[in-house]
Amino acid sequence: MLKGQLTRTAILEQAFETAARIGFDALSLATLAQDTSMSKSGLYAHFKSKEALQQAVLELATERFATMVVRPALRERRGEARLRALFEGYLAWICGSATRGYCLFMALGQEYRDRPGPIRERVVQALGAWHGVIARVVEGAIAVGELPPDTDARQFAFEMVGIGMSFQQSFQLLGRADAQLLARDAFDGLLARSRLPKGRPSGRHQAAVRV
Amino acid sequence: MLKGQLTRTAILEQAFETAARIGFDALSLATLAQDTSMSKSGLYAHFKSKEALQQAVLELATERFATMVVRPALRERRGEARLRALFEGYLAWICGSATRGYCLFMALGQEYRDRPGPIRERVVQALGAWHGVIARVVEGAIAVGELPPDTDARQFAFEMVGIGMSFQQSFQLLGRADAQLLARDAFDGLLARSRLPKGRPSGRHQAAVRV
Repeated sequence: MLKGQLTRTAILEQAFETAARIGFDALSLATLAQDTSMSKSGLYAHFKSKEALQQAVLELATERFATMVVRPALRERRGEARLRALFEGYLAWICGSATRGYCLFMALGQEYRDRPGPIRERVVQALGAWHGVIARVVEGAIAVGELPPDTDARQFAFEMVGIGMSFQQSFQLLGRADAQLLARDAFDGLLARSRLPKGRPSGRHQAAVRV
Repeated sequence: MLKGQLTRTAILEQAFETAARIGFDALSLATLAQDTSMSKSGLYAHFKSKEALQQAVLELATERFATMVVRPALRERRGEARLRALFEGYLAWICGSATRGYCLFMALGQEYRDRPGPIRERVVQALGAWHGVIARVVEGAIAVGELPPDTDARQFAFEMVGIGMSFQQSFQLLGRADAQLLARDAFDGLLARSRLPKGRPSGRHQAAVRV
């Protein structure tokens, strides 16, 4: 790797941390210069604008997510093993040391919720891709007979993302010691419910409920 | 109501919208003055500082959530009806016109994730209270026999919050037309799984998975 590329990566690592601390929109060549030993003009040699810097941080995060979460799971055998690996990678991403407890995509999902533009578009694209990865792994589990053929892969993805979001809130914000346990039980429950026969009463208390 | 109180409420309504647009931390007497017909000194008569204004907005949001989501559900009969009303109120809060698609608590959960202080403390308190409300309504459903005695109320709350968060992301950020359908199916699944016998294989595909 060329020295310039190494420097660029080191800058982006710092930018990632700065964004986690002060918010993504506050990230600029000026704020980043305060957190690095580089001058604003030195940073300018790598990134020509605040927008270019922000886009590069987003690309770094996307690549990291693929390396840390998606690719390791795809090395597991198709079926429940791969799906569990994907879920465990997701939990590790959310609370992991490599991202210092910061999920850029969840944070930007709030920060750019109502702000159209390239940042929001990139976040929407990344989150949509994540739903797609989960759904494809679910479809793989259906293909090998480890989930029923009528499993709704998009529904599964929607619910697994919800478990991850509630986990992040319980773990980071509420500081709950049982957050991982809650998340894993929720995932086991999601798998169990995917295996229930569809369109029929699902348990012993159903009758009481219909009264 | 005195004229002063009316004005104060109108200011807070505007502050709520300003915060939704520019972020809570950017909310101040100066930014709010731009969005109202009032001068900064006029606002100062109601709120002595940025922090006092922010706290008052948080109190307004907490009170609104109680009025729009919690109290109507508590008027339903105890059991699944009350639990469903709570869930539907939660969805309506997230996408509702009264909050203009802005869940202050979810937004602040990200914005103040790593920033200790009174705002973060108030958000943690409000989210913890919300988990507590859900858990108590689940316990009510257990008491009237509409959920099994071994239902884990705290687990249910964790998962219902996750459905709400994934719903918000799918509805507002990803703009998915099927977001409400996904959320309602997820809630039905959560209820169905709460009724499964615990600690036993849960479905016809279990054997294949254990191979």
